[in-house]
Amino acid sequence: MIVIVKPQATAEQMEHLLERIRQFGLQPMVSTGSERTVVGLLGDERLLPEGALESLPAVEQVMPILKPYKLVSREFKSTDTVIEVRGIPIGGKQIQVIAGPCSVETPEQMRSSAEAVKAAGCRLMRGGAFKPRTSPYTFQGVGDEGLDYFRSAADAVGLPIVTELMDVRKIDLFLEKGVDIIQIGTRNMQNFDLLKEVGRLDVPIILKRGLSATIKEWLMAAEYIAAHGNHRIIFAERGIRTFETAYRNVLDVTAIPVLKRETHLPVIVDPSHAGGKAWLVPQLSKAAIAAGADGLLVESHPCPEEAWCDADQALSPQQLMTLMGDLRRIAEAIGREL
Amino acid sequence: MIVIVKPQATAEQMEHLLERIRQFGLQPMVSTGSERTVVGLLGDERLLPEGALESLPAVEQVMPILKPYKLVSREFKSTDTVIEVRGIPIGGKQIQVIAGPCSVETPEQMRSSAEAVKAAGCRLMRGGAFKPRTSPYTFQGVGDEGLDYFRSAADAVGLPIVTELMDVRKIDLFLEKGVDIIQIGTRNMQNFDLLKEVGRLDVPIILKRGLSATIKEWLMAAEYIAAHGNHRIIFAERGIRTFETAYRNVLDVTAIPVLKRETHLPVIVDPSHAGGKAWLVPQLSKAAIAAGADGLLVESHPCPEEAWCDADQALSPQQLMTLMGDLRRIAEAIGREL
Amino acid sequence: MIVIVKPQATAEQMEHLLERIRQFGLQPMVSTGSERTVVGLLGDERLLPEGALESLPAVEQVMPILKPYKLVSREFKSTDTVIEVRGIPIGGKQIQVIAGPCSVETPEQMRSSAEAVKAAGCRLMRGGAFKPRTSPYTFQGVGDEGLDYFRSAADAVGLPIVTELMDVRKIDLFLEKGVDIIQIGTRNMQNFDLLKEVGRLDVPIILKRGLSATIKEWLMAAEYIAAHGNHRIIFAERGIRTFETAYRNVLDVTAIPVLKRETHLPVIVDPSHAGGKAWLVPQLSKAAIAAGADGLLVESHPCPEEAWCDADQALSPQQLMTLMGDLRRIAEAIGREL
Amino acid sequence: MIVIVKPQATAEQMEHLLERIRQFGLQPMVSTGSERTVVGLLGDERLLPEGALESLPAVEQVMPILKPYKLVSREFKSTDTVIEVRGIPIGGKQIQVIAGPCSVETPEQMRSSAEAVKAAGCRLMRGGAFKPRTSPYTFQGVGDEGLDYFRSAADAVGLPIVTELMDVRKIDLFLEKGVDIIQIGTRNMQNFDLLKEVGRLDVPIILKRGLSATIKEWLMAAEYIAAHGNHRIIFAERGIRTFETAYRNVLDVTAIPVLKRETHLPVIVDPSHAGGKAWLVPQLSKAAIAAGADGLLVESHPCPEEAWCDADQALSPQQLMTLMGDLRRIAEAIGREL
Repeated sequence: MIVIVKPQATAEQMEHLLERIRQFGLQPMVSTGSERTVVGLLGDERLLPEGALESLPAVEQVMPILKPYKLVSREFKSTDTVIEVRGIPIGGKQIQVIAGPCSVETPEQMRSSAEAVKAAGCRLMRGGAFKPRTSPYTFQGVGDEGLDYFRSAADAVGLPIVTELMDVRKIDLFLEKGVDIIQIGTRNMQNFDLLKEVGRLDVPIILKRGLSATIKEWLMAAEYIAAHGNHRIIFAERGIRTFETAYRNVLDVTAIPVLKRETHLPVIVDPSHAGGKAWLVPQLSKAAIAAGADGLLVESHPCPEEAWCDADQALSPQQLMTLMGDLRRIAEAIGREL
Repeated sequence: MIVIVKPQATAEQMEHLLERIRQFGLQPMVSTGSERTVVGLLGDERLLPEGALESLPAVEQVMPILKPYKLVSREFKSTDTVIEVRGIPIGGKQIQVIAGPCSVETPEQMRSSAEAVKAAGCRLMRGGAFKPRTSPYTFQGVGDEGLDYFRSAADAVGLPIVTELMDVRKIDLFLEKGVDIIQIGTRNMQNFDLLKEVGRLDVPIILKRGLSATIKEWLMAAEYIAAHGNHRIIFAERGIRTFETAYRNVLDVTAIPVLKRETHLPVIVDPSHAGGKAWLVPQLSKAAIAAGADGLLVESHPCPEEAWCDADQALSPQQLMTLMGDLRRIAEAIGREL
Repeated sequence: MIVIVKPQATAEQMEHLLERIRQFGLQPMVSTGSERTVVGLLGDERLLPEGALESLPAVEQVMPILKPYKLVSREFKSTDTVIEVRGIPIGGKQIQVIAGPCSVETPEQMRSSAEAVKAAGCRLMRGGAFKPRTSPYTFQGVGDEGLDYFRSAADAVGLPIVTELMDVRKIDLFLEKGVDIIQIGTRNMQNFDLLKEVGRLDVPIILKRGLSATIKEWLMAAEYIAAHGNHRIIFAERGIRTFETAYRNVLDVTAIPVLKRETHLPVIVDPSHAGGKAWLVPQLSKAAIAAGADGLLVESHPCPEEAWCDADQALSPQQLMTLMGDLRRIAEAIGREL
Repeated sequence: MIVIVKPQATAEQMEHLLERIRQFGLQPMVSTGSERTVVGLLGDERLLPEGALESLPAVEQVMPILKPYKLVSREFKSTDTVIEVRGIPIGGKQIQVIAGPCSVETPEQMRSSAEAVKAAGCRLMRGGAFKPRTSPYTFQGVGDEGLDYFRSAADAVGLPIVTELMDVRKIDLFLEKGVDIIQIGTRNMQNFDLLKEVGRLDVPIILKRGLSATIKEWLMAAEYIAAHGNHRIIFAERGIRTFETAYRNVLDVTAIPVLKRETHLPVIVDPSHAGGKAWLVPQLSKAAIAAGADGLLVESHPCPEEAWCDADQALSPQQLMTLMGDLRRIAEAIGREL
């Protein structure tokens, strides 16, 4: 950490700054430049409470030089982590497309969804039994029994399942139903109590990016999970909130190579929620794979216009099939497989 | 709701659209203009699943004409709601400044905090026993016993207490300790399970705005609480995330008059988290009151530089005292009292 | 255009609204619903001054149903426009990578730049003689003679040139030097006097997106050029400003398919300015092509670390060569060529 | 400037870094910490081209410690600058409300506007003869003769005039008509050729903030004007672009105290363009003054609903009069006058 000293700081204020630094167990190292005096801090800067030095009268600015994340960082582990889910690798050469409906509706809908996902060549399936909805008056998800419909439908075609956990009180249910990957949604990316709890599980976690979460905050959210013991974390970019209103969110493809540099963990992309429209999914999916994503989360439905939610963003079985073919060509063009 | 029809829609696609509208229990009303055909929907448009019409081939655009919130809206209740907490009105002519430390640290710190808050003329006190922190490696709050320190310190000077709830499993503890106002923090504004649970309580709720929540989403989050039975909700603007990096967040003063027009509920402002620096608090506080806020949430600490978190944003007892004097003059200038 | 009437509007206010609508040469059509009265406007809604109806007491909300752009829209021309520049097509099956240095420095630097651009297989060259710089104290571009260095170097290898125009007073110089494509930069996207002037030229225009310009504003800026007579416009997405600080801007790939749907004009992408770092350029370039971009604007320099500006974002000749190979495979995977 | 060295940098890469630093005329000072090596640069870091060090293989991060602006900074001049315009001080104890119509329409409209502005107690008048409009098909301003209408109307009541300059070719006209303050609009904040030209004039400049300009960019834009000789600059905050769509822009009141700390120049606020609605103007105006603004730019019109542009954001003469009374009370409450 580096502290820039105010040009007008008095000797007394300067002494107070140095004393405070030592009190936190760090060693100050003063360099006097032509326009500013700078104090370097030797030792683990993470010992300092946030804002502790900024509040001192001598201080103009405090600049951290270390990144606040450890376990999830490339510095901690330089090789790519490949997460295996019932034999299916996520984060390796093979790209995984996780498809399925926005929400679990009925056993029949899940059966035909699972068949379409399987037929398209996907190796994992997604679907939500508990839905975070902006309005209390809209469909909130089928709930507990939804997990049964999902489990049976996916088992029938041999697909591992991915589903969202919103409430710590549902963890036992998720474990009992053998959910293969637990998704932490956008709105819960900084629900720290939930992160701590899934950090104690032995189940891979998909951690979606918050709507306006910075890369650093997102990595720190993953660090919460890792710090509690669970290192099997998959980042999922799903579009960020900006000033643009012509589409729901802005898919941040730059986040893909940046994350791949900062962390050893897999990175996937959700083009369906990013764009918010089915017709945008193919182009966004191709861009994500071309930019280096390890996989996708794609919404598909046996009959999109009858979906109970997000009807305008689900792909039909035929569209999913076509997409898989298109993506295979992109994957090969960049030396990967699908 | 109004549906704009694509100019190239076929008669068959148009018929399909009308049929779907009727299936949802609504009555379509077609108007043919020179450049576009428009279909108005008679009936309660809230019956429509989101995206249901957008996915149809005839549809160019769907425009809601009703607001999605009811119970919290001015249309539902035209007069200002005043929420009384142990005799103290929030949302009336009198402005309330809720001050206290970012986090509960020790019994002694809470005692001197409470005395300073009382001495400055504030009528309610804030403090956090559970802290949502970006990093898992920083101080996470004192926890359960923190509520005891807070309760005793506040009782000694007769101040009702406001504290943040992050986890549904802590609700019983909060009730047992008699927390007077429960705060739902920024990161939990769309933690819908938590909103539902506090919606079942008989305790006023301060609902902080999410970092990038729109006014509509914020009102809908409040609607969750109201729809579950608890109508005593206070909105707290605390700065939004933008492109600007010169200060932590951008205090959105425009939200104050806009909310006061849209909802009958009280609106307060947190200048401390918005600006992130103690020296900004006075100017932001004055702006908030001048713009019509019903109160403030201000961080203060007996000795800011020794605070365990956010040391650079807390006011000292003397600064809090001065601020109260300054605000009193603004309050009088706009015909209110403090 | 559709006007939503306030539920509490009086008959007199309603009458005033209808009268005003007629005064603007439009025909009002009133529909009374269960919760709101809605007035449709027949006729060309572009006749209405902005805000004219919003200011009336009866009006709750005004919703346009037509898009404000005409000449640049797909509705106006449904087939893709291909712009030919000295025989090189932009907007067709073939993808164009326009490479070259951020700024023109010396005749020698331009010569070796041009050779590297040509050797890599690019068909057009970029370079700036006039540079928009945030600081008045940094290098502002070589100026007039820079165009000569550029022209000679590009002519020697037979490449058409693209360069930025910032000042209306330089138009004659640009014409005299035979600039093949004039670039309007990010900061001038809404410099309307400049847009009007280039609208009168017979030279293709690359119109970069403003840092926080919406798709609609960008299309309207192009409409300015088209409305003054110049229909040869190429859109260039170059990253938008968001809250994220881990990279310079966020490349908005969603803008590519959305623009391709809204306009018949070509769309290219500048991955160099978007990411701001050379190491990000390959992944962003691949994403852009995969998402459907018609070309790229890429910064390259004979010796990046010695570049007079943006040294950290230019590709070396070798990196440019490698990139072209990688992009060729992506282009083929999506049925295009490079 | 401080350079953080990559932990994996080789001795050779490190040597190369030090050599480059010396080549730019700076002196490197190496400090080896436990986790990172840090190089301090002694000398004027403004000598370094942007990105010059970032591109070197040894470099992890470059952190400037000096601010890039000089002439406009508090460090350069610690006392408040008061700009006098025909005897009227801007930036002193007295607050100035500059009112008038969005656009000059007719001599008669300007006459009654001027009378209303004068009657309300304002000491300066605003109005636009040249209008930057998003659409080429809407009213673009009356043009040259508009300045005459404005000049005559304002002279009749003795008010100095403020009007926007968009095109360098109109400077002579502005000087000839004796425009008292030239406004540089939001879309031209980084039109550097325009900034350089007004930097050569002896007329005060109101520099509006770009829609998504950071504080630093805004100060640098002013630095352009100052560096060319004109030090009479007034900053005008007018709302920034964010994700929120419930109102046009977000008035950034935090910018007021931050600017007052960073620069010695006056800061005013435009509440009309920020909120985009007349009904928001009073609350936003009060907030701006309470936060320390030195003045306001307010749109007013003799008959708002008949205004040729922005009809929904202009105040009527009566509303302007009432606002002035309200603001006077706020001004007194903070020890200023109006």
